[in-house]
Amino acid sequence: MYPFIEVTAVAALAMYGVLRGARRHFDLVGICYIAFAVAFGGGTLRDLLLDRHHVFWIENDHLVWIVMAIAVAGSIFPNLIARLEPVLWIPDALGLGLFSILGATYALDGGTGRLVACLMGVLTGSCGGVIADVTCNELPLVFRRSPLYATCSFCGAATFVALRELGVGNSLAMGIGVSVVVALRVGAVRWNWQLPTKPTSEERGV
Amino acid sequence: MYPFIEVTAVAALAMYGVLRGARRHFDLVGICYIAFAVAFGGGTLRDLLLDRHHVFWIENDHLVWIVMAIAVAGSIFPNLIARLEPVLWIPDALGLGLFSILGATYALDGGTGRLVACLMGVLTGSCGGVIADVTCNELPLVFRRSPLYATCSFCGAATFVALRELGVGNSLAMGIGVSVVVALRVGAVRWNWQLPTKPTSEERGV
Amino acid sequence: MYPFIEVTAVAALAMYGVLRGARRHFDLVGICYIAFAVAFGGGTLRDLLLDRHHVFWIENDHLVWIVMAIAVAGSIFPNLIARLEPVLWIPDALGLGLFSILGATYALDGGTGRLVACLMGVLTGSCGGVIADVTCNELPLVFRRSPLYATCSFCGAATFVALRELGVGNSLAMGIGVSVVVALRVGAVRWNWQLPTKPTSEERGV
Repeated sequence: MYPFIEVTAVAALAMYGVLRGARRHFDLVGICYIAFAVAFGGGTLRDLLLDRHHVFWIENDHLVWIVMAIAVAGSIFPNLIARLEPVLWIPDALGLGLFSILGATYALDGGTGRLVACLMGVLTGSCGGVIADVTCNELPLVFRRSPLYATCSFCGAATFVALRELGVGNSLAMGIGVSVVVALRVGAVRWNWQLPTKPTSEERGV
Repeated sequence: MYPFIEVTAVAALAMYGVLRGARRHFDLVGICYIAFAVAFGGGTLRDLLLDRHHVFWIENDHLVWIVMAIAVAGSIFPNLIARLEPVLWIPDALGLGLFSILGATYALDGGTGRLVACLMGVLTGSCGGVIADVTCNELPLVFRRSPLYATCSFCGAATFVALRELGVGNSLAMGIGVSVVVALRVGAVRWNWQLPTKPTSEERGV
Repeated sequence: MYPFIEVTAVAALAMYGVLRGARRHFDLVGICYIAFAVAFGGGTLRDLLLDRHHVFWIENDHLVWIVMAIAVAGSIFPNLIARLEPVLWIPDALGLGLFSILGATYALDGGTGRLVACLMGVLTGSCGGVIADVTCNELPLVFRRSPLYATCSFCGAATFVALRELGVGNSLAMGIGVSVVVALRVGAVRWNWQLPTKPTSEERGV
């Protein structure tokens, strides 16, 4: 089950990267860069911070081939991936759940505190997009008004960490944690849940 | 003495991050991201480059709680922190001194050369701000005309490294190094000391 | 031979950094930052990802002195370096070749797969420029229409990896790999070879 979710989630992230690159008319090199940044950025940062070696995609060669294949295919046939876009958020939500809880697990296994474990979950889940946005010279999406993303990740990771502290078995805690992230994310996309922000002066009509 | 300066310095950096995020109307997630980037960015990069594990904030859990608390409080009561802003540069200057000399110490202890130790001091002191600026899609402040910051860091670190080479005890050398950074930074803010730059054509009135 | 190419390549990269900083009217601190980012960014990322410690420039102190000297000299006498610009692409091409093949070698020695080794070559060769561009708040040059750069790196690294697999001796494989990168890069600059991109609506005259 786990490797299957991982592959589909990495593929969904890579496709988002390809779509973003194609929209900005990058060439193959640029599209590959963005696809790798979105798919691998968060996990790489997690592995470096927790001193896990090899980094996960160096260890799991097949993920690199998948992202590369998607980037090349997406550069040649951009419409192929554009047609998948409406359903991409589903594997993306699954991946957010999986990566968030994996990040928290690795952190706890590495002996970090509880809050750090939750943050490592958030970082694994959302930093790839931040790195890609920053590289593309755009303000990261998680900083702008958009449906909850990092928040879903945090709540799920916190649930998982709390359950582990309460003595719940690891597999059950992981299952519940992933479900919390996915359920929140599905709700956020469906009903456009957002965190409150203060209106800018333009929005207040000034 | 040292833990007290560290906590106030991290808190000051986190408040700067919160103010910057609030000014750009980020939501809680964005404000947390910036607060963590400003407070932990430089030290994290230093620890990764010198292969020190765990990274300092994973080791010192309480710093993470402090930054998180400031980010949450600052999102709910932005005026609270805005009122502290006029005096924030004082703990910030202390923190710049502390982090610069700590960075240089860790580098020397890790067996690096002298120039590398000075640069590691600068990087520890100023890279958090650079990472936060880049993430916010702004040109880093240290690249723009502003009172000396990285330069104070470099001079203090160089003084510290020179004193250690001359056989001065570590504590005394650290004390003098921190004092040099703080004195220079206070002077730079007070009298607006800047490095020379070539005027742009607009500034020359062309 | 190798240390000589390394020093000239690092010097060429640092000069590009100085020119870029000077054009944007950065002060000495900004110019140093950019020069270090261009010269050391790619190799640093490679060393962190492959867990090679110390990072190459901490190990090889003299490279840091060279970049620092170029940044200081370039801030004081900007015309000196500007006059060298027309020929800088030659040591830069050599450096691209050297760093790409070195990156791939280190990766294979670290036990990575073949595709990862090729990508590590590309990353070593081109990530310094990407980091510098992102820090300067510009869209990375490798993402915009420009003569082949990362592609040369990839083709040379792939040739090197293939030759090693076929049992060719390491030195010969490295020599051929470097030659492929340099030859492609010289051709790309000379005849302006680019990867195809889809025209933007402006370019289509819409």
